[in-house]
Amino acid sequence: MVPASGTLDPMQLVNVDHVGIAVHDLDAAIDSYRELFGVEPIRRETVEDQGVDEAMIPLGGSFVQLLAPLRDDTPVGRFLAARGEGLHHVAYAVADLPAALSHLEEHGADLIDRTPRVGGGGHQIAFVHPKTVGGTLIELVALGD
Amino acid sequence: MVPASGTLDPMQLVNVDHVGIAVHDLDAAIDSYRELFGVEPIRRETVEDQGVDEAMIPLGGSFVQLLAPLRDDTPVGRFLAARGEGLHHVAYAVADLPAALSHLEEHGADLIDRTPRVGGGGHQIAFVHPKTVGGTLIELVALGD
Repeated sequence: MVPASGTLDPMQLVNVDHVGIAVHDLDAAIDSYRELFGVEPIRRETVEDQGVDEAMIPLGGSFVQLLAPLRDDTPVGRFLAARGEGLHHVAYAVADLPAALSHLEEHGADLIDRTPRVGGGGHQIAFVHPKTVGGTLIELVALGD
Repeated sequence: MVPASGTLDPMQLVNVDHVGIAVHDLDAAIDSYRELFGVEPIRRETVEDQGVDEAMIPLGGSFVQLLAPLRDDTPVGRFLAARGEGLHHVAYAVADLPAALSHLEEHGADLIDRTPRVGGGGHQIAFVHPKTVGGTLIELVALGD
């Protein structure tokens, strides 16, 4: 779906896509979610660009994205070394990702990705730096791509 | 809605309720969400039991719950001192909170609250310890209370 340019507030069509969680052991975390919540990954893949093995687990109308680093010298590897396992980012799906990025930049956001790149599942994604608001790494995912 | 006892997997009816974010300055964080995403809190209150001022901001079919500590010697105050601002917990709404807690405990979860207590908005809530899975503090909220 591509909204007519200029007719839609770029932040109007937004949905929680997933909550990203950094873990040391992807298999152990998948097993725990299966045991506790009765859920299975719908997708598991290596995303070289981000240096992670990831699993997408449906839970609560959204997804838990479990992230295990491929190496220590990756963003998730450094996150684990500094903070241990835990919540890493929150991702919102948006209807028009380039328009959302322009809107956020015009309103003072510090964008890690000023233009979309390819993330897990082949989706177009972009990250907003945690210093923008609340120390929170925010990912935007293009809806429907 | 109260499902007939025993007829429903207690983890089946689950919805992402909110993502909790610890911040130093609640007003500044609310202003940033307004500026960036065009959203306003639907509720702002002091929850003495948790030692926080909190604001619930609708975003993406769920809520961002901004949490600022009332004092340094509170869970969120200690979180900020140790880790700085950032993602604090993820909350799932469940249809039958006592049944969900029993289910999780039977499956090895470490419950902070073995019985529900009253949280923000007067909702029945309970927390699951981060050591249960993925270093993630998980909150369960009773649907419809």
